[in-house]
Amino acid sequence: MTAAAPSRARPRVVIVGGGFAGLYAARALKRAPVDLTVLDRENHHTFQPLLYQVATAVLAPSEIANPIRWLLRRQKNTEVFLAHVDRIDPAKRVVYADGGKLEVPYDYLILATGSRHAYFGHPEWEPLAPGLKTIDDAREIRRRFLLAFEEAEKCDDPAVRDEWLTMVIVGGGPTGVELAGMLPDVARRALRRDFRRIDTARLRVVLLEGGKRILPAFPEKLSAHAQRDLEQLGATVRTGALVTRIEKDAVYVGSERIPCRTVFWAAGNAGSPLAKFLGVPLDPMGRVKVAPDLSVPSHPEVFVAGDLAQVTWHPGLSVPGVAPAAIQEGTHAAKNIVRELRGEPRAPFEYWNKGNLATIGRHKAIADFPWFSISGYIAWWMWLVLHILYLAGFRNRLIVAIEWGYAYFTYQRGARVITAHTEPERD
Amino acid sequence: MTAAAPSRARPRVVIVGGGFAGLYAARALKRAPVDLTVLDRENHHTFQPLLYQVATAVLAPSEIANPIRWLLRRQKNTEVFLAHVDRIDPAKRVVYADGGKLEVPYDYLILATGSRHAYFGHPEWEPLAPGLKTIDDAREIRRRFLLAFEEAEKCDDPAVRDEWLTMVIVGGGPTGVELAGMLPDVARRALRRDFRRIDTARLRVVLLEGGKRILPAFPEKLSAHAQRDLEQLGATVRTGALVTRIEKDAVYVGSERIPCRTVFWAAGNAGSPLAKFLGVPLDPMGRVKVAPDLSVPSHPEVFVAGDLAQVTWHPGLSVPGVAPAAIQEGTHAAKNIVRELRGEPRAPFEYWNKGNLATIGRHKAIADFPWFSISGYIAWWMWLVLHILYLAGFRNRLIVAIEWGYAYFTYQRGARVITAHTEPERD
Repeated sequence: MTAAAPSRARPRVVIVGGGFAGLYAARALKRAPVDLTVLDRENHHTFQPLLYQVATAVLAPSEIANPIRWLLRRQKNTEVFLAHVDRIDPAKRVVYADGGKLEVPYDYLILATGSRHAYFGHPEWEPLAPGLKTIDDAREIRRRFLLAFEEAEKCDDPAVRDEWLTMVIVGGGPTGVELAGMLPDVARRALRRDFRRIDTARLRVVLLEGGKRILPAFPEKLSAHAQRDLEQLGATVRTGALVTRIEKDAVYVGSERIPCRTVFWAAGNAGSPLAKFLGVPLDPMGRVKVAPDLSVPSHPEVFVAGDLAQVTWHPGLSVPGVAPAAIQEGTHAAKNIVRELRGEPRAPFEYWNKGNLATIGRHKAIADFPWFSISGYIAWWMWLVLHILYLAGFRNRLIVAIEWGYAYFTYQRGARVITAHTEPERD
Repeated sequence: MTAAAPSRARPRVVIVGGGFAGLYAARALKRAPVDLTVLDRENHHTFQPLLYQVATAVLAPSEIANPIRWLLRRQKNTEVFLAHVDRIDPAKRVVYADGGKLEVPYDYLILATGSRHAYFGHPEWEPLAPGLKTIDDAREIRRRFLLAFEEAEKCDDPAVRDEWLTMVIVGGGPTGVELAGMLPDVARRALRRDFRRIDTARLRVVLLEGGKRILPAFPEKLSAHAQRDLEQLGATVRTGALVTRIEKDAVYVGSERIPCRTVFWAAGNAGSPLAKFLGVPLDPMGRVKVAPDLSVPSHPEVFVAGDLAQVTWHPGLSVPGVAPAAIQEGTHAAKNIVRELRGEPRAPFEYWNKGNLATIGRHKAIADFPWFSISGYIAWWMWLVLHILYLAGFRNRLIVAIEWGYAYFTYQRGARVITAHTEPERD
């Protein structure tokens, strides 16, 4: 099918990807004189900053995800397709999806397909150490986390039981820190009374960071604070610890073997593979080096926004891969299209750093703003309120607030349902 | 592992299955002088009467499911294992699970593993027409239901588009009726504004019932009322319609071909395959014919409760396979064990028919009580209130009430997230 056939009077803008960059680009085109097509391989936009809460059984998937077509339902110029984009032909200006079944020509393209996990050249680690980018990822992490205690409870061999009660998180960025702070807390408080043979508080969580310190995007003082917080919450933090091997029942740091049956991956990103069809140079992380207006140098009608774009902020420094940056970039790319259609010149992108927040655990967070930085209680409440406010949809805000209130006061976790492949391991 | 090894001082009761019968049996043994082991292949108890609401995107899975070990956390005499029971040896009095890794001996066994779908000798229909018994089933139905509109929106061939906009439900029992009443409503109200190329209100839902009337457990007058309600809601009801064949893009009634790409199965149950290990006669539906005390004739230490038990109510009439019956049977089996341990005789089971409720759609339900029957508005509110009250857990009750309020006033559906295998069909 040729999606654009019906109306060629107005220029057609195609957005690939319904994450923060793609969604906000679409919203910025609401009243633009264009026909807009949004393509995503999922039917929903995911509020990624709260994914770790699905992974740790606080929230249900549908509480942080909304159908993209529902979010854009009021935009009469917009159609949304659930489709798997296979390739892009920038010479013909066509996006091909669903194995050739869907062809979408464009006048302007905004590519916002983000990044996936990179396993440092070890793709065989992926099934052993799932990462956290999508709702399905979060559900898989939750499943493995909860299943480990079920297996430990059934286990008579103390060595194997200890392996089930050891979890390793690879990568000390925000996601790794959130998981490392939350898992011991859930084990100690929410799960403890439910088991008879194991003491879930004995869960050992090891956070492995290859670099010199965790949360390297923050000032050194806050990194150190976060590490102390994590250790207080019961996690072991090891910096300068490079993973050399992952097996079913162990992780290796150098030649040291850490026996464990649950590994989560929060290290390393690689740009979405669609970038390679643009025929432009990519940076070592597979991101597209965009021009100041966020377009692709050789293809001014193609913009890249969000995690897939490498945008220079200060000399030698890129705009970070965080939700506010993706929102700003998506909006800016869309506005540049509008400017051009009005006959105005495009504007260069300027990143407005609103500050950087990372949550570590109950009452523990760090916040780094351009003028000051804080940690602890206030930073944590600030994180909480901001994330409620930015969630899309009134219903989600209300329900997430209730789930958080429930978790805060009872120390319980509401979404502890394991589904899909619940059959226990039979090794 | 031999789970009972540690303490053989008190008799060990093993319950297989954490549905209504198993859960209420476990609860009735809370203060009994026994060691209790509960085995289930899922980690959660599912509130089955609301499964169709997960399938139709009103509720999230975790809102109607709770971990079994959490529900039983206050019972100090109880341990819960997530385990897949493979077989039972009633001579040795041992339950074998997890491919031989787990052996649980018992003094008393309560088998409460319920039933699965039966495809009338056509197991090849199962992947084409999923049923609705578990959370995973509900998520699969929701996925197919939502995906059909996504495919229709992308489709240029009007004939194929009509196939995507036709859904057939096989079986006119409560589940089939709930789905047939809900799907057209969701399509008309919640989804309509979100699509550009298709009119979701054109969804054709066909309910096929092999017998003479839908909801045969109700009086004829109420069946007729329910059929009128369904037709008002937009479903087509066909009785005396026996399915002879199901294909990827069609269902056959006799030799008539109904083109459609989405089929749901709500017809026919078969007892759990574990029943056959008891070595006693089963009825044609694979259920165990139990003695008046709910035990198995040749094995007085084995009880069967819930959907797997065939319990005579009146001559020629069995206790129906509904949640209140399962709760009563599970509780009764447990109490008979307690009686016996006290040296008292066992009591025969007497079913207390509290009435029969079926919901059809907004403001439409039927209720059949021993003394009177009603339909419409009041029956619907009654259904709503009762289901909120019987949900386990305060948090679930609160959140389900909010989700229902949201759905009631906005006509929206909150849980429209498609996950797992979202790649579009590529036939």
